[in-house]
Amino acid sequence: IARVRSPGIAEPIGDLTRMLERRGCEAMIESDTAADLGHGERGVPYETIGQAADLAVVVGGDGTLLTAARNLARYGTPLVGVNQGRVGFMTDIALGDMGEAIGAILDGRYSLEERSLIEAEILRGGAKLLETVALNDAVVGRGAQGRLIEFQLYLDGEYVYTLRGDGMIIATPTGSTAYALSAQGPILHPAVPAFALVPLNPHTLSARPVSVSDRTVIEVVLVRAVDARAHFDGYVLVDLAEGDHLVLRRSAHNVRLIHPPGYSYFVMLREKLRWSESVD
Amino acid sequence: IARVRSPGIAEPIGDLTRMLERRGCEAMIESDTAADLGHGERGVPYETIGQAADLAVVVGGDGTLLTAARNLARYGTPLVGVNQGRVGFMTDIALGDMGEAIGAILDGRYSLEERSLIEAEILRGGAKLLETVALNDAVVGRGAQGRLIEFQLYLDGEYVYTLRGDGMIIATPTGSTAYALSAQGPILHPAVPAFALVPLNPHTLSARPVSVSDRTVIEVVLVRAVDARAHFDGYVLVDLAEGDHLVLRRSAHNVRLIHPPGYSYFVMLREKLRWSESVD
Amino acid sequence: IARVRSPGIAEPIGDLTRMLERRGCEAMIESDTAADLGHGERGVPYETIGQAADLAVVVGGDGTLLTAARNLARYGTPLVGVNQGRVGFMTDIALGDMGEAIGAILDGRYSLEERSLIEAEILRGGAKLLETVALNDAVVGRGAQGRLIEFQLYLDGEYVYTLRGDGMIIATPTGSTAYALSAQGPILHPAVPAFALVPLNPHTLSARPVSVSDRTVIEVVLVRAVDARAHFDGYVLVDLAEGDHLVLRRSAHNVRLIHPPGYSYFVMLREKLRWSESVD
Amino acid sequence: IARVRSPGIAEPIGDLTRMLERRGCEAMIESDTAADLGHGERGVPYETIGQAADLAVVVGGDGTLLTAARNLARYGTPLVGVNQGRVGFMTDIALGDMGEAIGAILDGRYSLEERSLIEAEILRGGAKLLETVALNDAVVGRGAQGRLIEFQLYLDGEYVYTLRGDGMIIATPTGSTAYALSAQGPILHPAVPAFALVPLNPHTLSARPVSVSDRTVIEVVLVRAVDARAHFDGYVLVDLAEGDHLVLRRSAHNVRLIHPPGYSYFVMLREKLRWSESVD
Repeated sequence: IARVRSPGIAEPIGDLTRMLERRGCEAMIESDTAADLGHGERGVPYETIGQAADLAVVVGGDGTLLTAARNLARYGTPLVGVNQGRVGFMTDIALGDMGEAIGAILDGRYSLEERSLIEAEILRGGAKLLETVALNDAVVGRGAQGRLIEFQLYLDGEYVYTLRGDGMIIATPTGSTAYALSAQGPILHPAVPAFALVPLNPHTLSARPVSVSDRTVIEVVLVRAVDARAHFDGYVLVDLAEGDHLVLRRSAHNVRLIHPPGYSYFVMLREKLRWSESVD
Repeated sequence: IARVRSPGIAEPIGDLTRMLERRGCEAMIESDTAADLGHGERGVPYETIGQAADLAVVVGGDGTLLTAARNLARYGTPLVGVNQGRVGFMTDIALGDMGEAIGAILDGRYSLEERSLIEAEILRGGAKLLETVALNDAVVGRGAQGRLIEFQLYLDGEYVYTLRGDGMIIATPTGSTAYALSAQGPILHPAVPAFALVPLNPHTLSARPVSVSDRTVIEVVLVRAVDARAHFDGYVLVDLAEGDHLVLRRSAHNVRLIHPPGYSYFVMLREKLRWSESVD
Repeated sequence: IARVRSPGIAEPIGDLTRMLERRGCEAMIESDTAADLGHGERGVPYETIGQAADLAVVVGGDGTLLTAARNLARYGTPLVGVNQGRVGFMTDIALGDMGEAIGAILDGRYSLEERSLIEAEILRGGAKLLETVALNDAVVGRGAQGRLIEFQLYLDGEYVYTLRGDGMIIATPTGSTAYALSAQGPILHPAVPAFALVPLNPHTLSARPVSVSDRTVIEVVLVRAVDARAHFDGYVLVDLAEGDHLVLRRSAHNVRLIHPPGYSYFVMLREKLRWSESVD
Repeated sequence: IARVRSPGIAEPIGDLTRMLERRGCEAMIESDTAADLGHGERGVPYETIGQAADLAVVVGGDGTLLTAARNLARYGTPLVGVNQGRVGFMTDIALGDMGEAIGAILDGRYSLEERSLIEAEILRGGAKLLETVALNDAVVGRGAQGRLIEFQLYLDGEYVYTLRGDGMIIATPTGSTAYALSAQGPILHPAVPAFALVPLNPHTLSARPVSVSDRTVIEVVLVRAVDARAHFDGYVLVDLAEGDHLVLRRSAHNVRLIHPPGYSYFVMLREKLRWSESVD
């Protein structure tokens, strides 16, 4: 699976395919990727990959891996991320090291990390408007017209507070280094079984990010909004109406990330966030 | 157990003692509390309370409960907190409701919450300088002379980063609403099995609070400091020298908090942090 | 000038009108206010008020005063704000104290405070798309479809940086306690001749609010955006296209706020932000 | 004037001295610098430099320039900063470019920037305990023993609030990119005539940085503190007692910084804070 419209991707994918076949593995190419490479006839849909593949190699950036993970979540297919330039939060392997790293993984040298997913439902007047999953985050936010929205937060059915502001991010540990981090949310190590609730520009100055157990059922009820919108991983967008309920819980499925030997979450984070560089 | 030098505390404690005796319970009064009440001869040390008591009733503020919890941690004695005025983060019951609430708890109507403790060691030149516990937080900070310290952070033996700044707070979920909150740390619900690492005024602008699993061994190595100091719950203070290792892990003991019927963590938090009040 | 659809506003406005007439002043009622009171025929437009009035009494909240100030900015008419409940950032006088306070002001007992305005232009392909003023803030933000926008900031014609994120707020001191405060912007006392530039959820973790002299010409150039929008005081909304230039400078006009005797900016702020209340 | 114990500094200083003499200028070497270079007999004290020099060339980092500026503040001697490695907030010129840049400045090609200073007094029981200046900041903070201090803030004699926490930074625009920035304070462009008041880990969650006009007299009264300390530019440290008054106002003197042709504050800031680098 590769990012579409990636110049120069055909050759490394060809190399990888041949390497896999030499090792007696069968290689499949995802439909959009195949079409992009000019071999649309070779493409197989995510569904087939999910049912048949033992490993999904994703070449691109974190966005490419996010899309692949969303599509493969229900199948439990392990994914490994290959970046085309700078290391990503989830794409550990440099393109130039792909052959060697995938070889090591096939030899059994890897670590497996389970990443939690959010299962989201939007209820309107008792009916289910939408059901989706999110690997990074669910966001309730203002739309284009209005400056602020007002919503209630319930945790496990208990009323917590009413907030006015630009909205709220509910992030998994994976998403804690994405949009939530820009909004001053806390970083959650992937082994912490929690979700981060990060208010977006809240009117109440004492509103702070809160992390709750990932066994918590999180419910956001839209009280007042000229227009409001829910986003899931920045891909799925839904217009919200006053009274809509957004219900979030941990999915029964996990995303299973494969890391090459020597991978370290904190080394990656230190590099991405340039933690060793001080101002003077 | 009561806060010392609390005017007007003798009467409610007398009432409680009589109520307990009417119900066939034996009441003990902690030594300092007894001395403060003018009945030093009745006082029993924390050790006896820890070994014999089924419930420790703590009257005062969060600081009083913190001290009692630190002293009773190794015995697993359940604690219940009674506040003398405004509700505390851990002292749920108003003094006027004490009799009724303790009665309900003795009747079996209560909830039990386990709060994690940090077990801390300071190593100097291979030798153990100090061993203590913390219910709120361990803080490595600059002392009086110097503006900044430099330290390395290791998690489970792996080097994470070197930071320069005023120091770092390592907080339990209980401590996440104490000093760490003032330092822009995230609130961790007590059911989240994590510790929050909150840098204090770091030079690196991208340094952010990180929450790690409470099974992580956290090690802070002091690299450079004219003077530096470690604090535990704000009570135990230790001068640090360059090269000192502070090793933190979750204690095998928990603090066991008893809450009266109807207690809610988030209702308490909403009230303490005035979450329902917006600026306009 | 009163907030429309304010129940119970007719009587105090009637009282004020009679008081003014007793003192030999002529009272005018703004058109929308008059219509709302059922006396549309008495209403006069902002233009007339601006040209003829010596003082505009605004009854409502900060939003009402904001609208009035925007409409009267070019005329330099002094405004005084009366709140209907809780004190506002700009509406100092309680409704019950209106008669007395306006009387004191007419007696010459008041303070006058000049508040700066932003003069904003949007340029598209060299042509001026829009020209408006803002008392609180100009906001460049993402619209409904996309998560982030990318823009360049120029100050006095000099390139400062390219930022990706949800956008940026450019706030006057008056606006520094409005939306910008929710976005972690700094409070600027009205006597500080500066604008605050507050990034909204920036990708670059080291991006921080910057205050620049109010003689600076601020230019935001939209580089990349699926959809983006500019807001001025939360009232005027404009869709932006890639390449649009937003040019901001201090207006030649000021808003002139009249405060009753005893007014203090910091007393107001302390009350609004509940600065005297600590968490424990 | 050079940073002491700078290896390899003798040669460029020798080069600069000869260049200055070729141009008919007289060169003086500051006492500590001269001693460090092994020519203690050539050294002249700051007082002589202040009275006689037309330009002080400072080689080192921001700390070196800070010390020189503090010593020369009363004389108004223009300073130019030369860095020995990475560009500093105030040391614009790379050591390798020193000759050329100083030449250009002597030719009249430079910009002059006035930086404000804080004049600080500590009053105890009516008597003046200390008088000093600060180019970066005055800090009231907790000392080694206690966790928090409590103080009152007065502005122009008016009570603003009582704060409990680790203390407060009062920063000039110059200091707004130093310690105050680590404490989440706002950046003030040097042309903004203001001081930033930045609370350090305040108990009140709604306490935010406030910028006030630099004509404001700022007074901090220490109400409660087991031990507390005032710092000025991180150099001068003073133990504070309960009841002490710290009185701060803009000094009549300015630090006069000379910048080489092409200098830009924001280009420097963009480089120092790595503003162009986003997380992904």
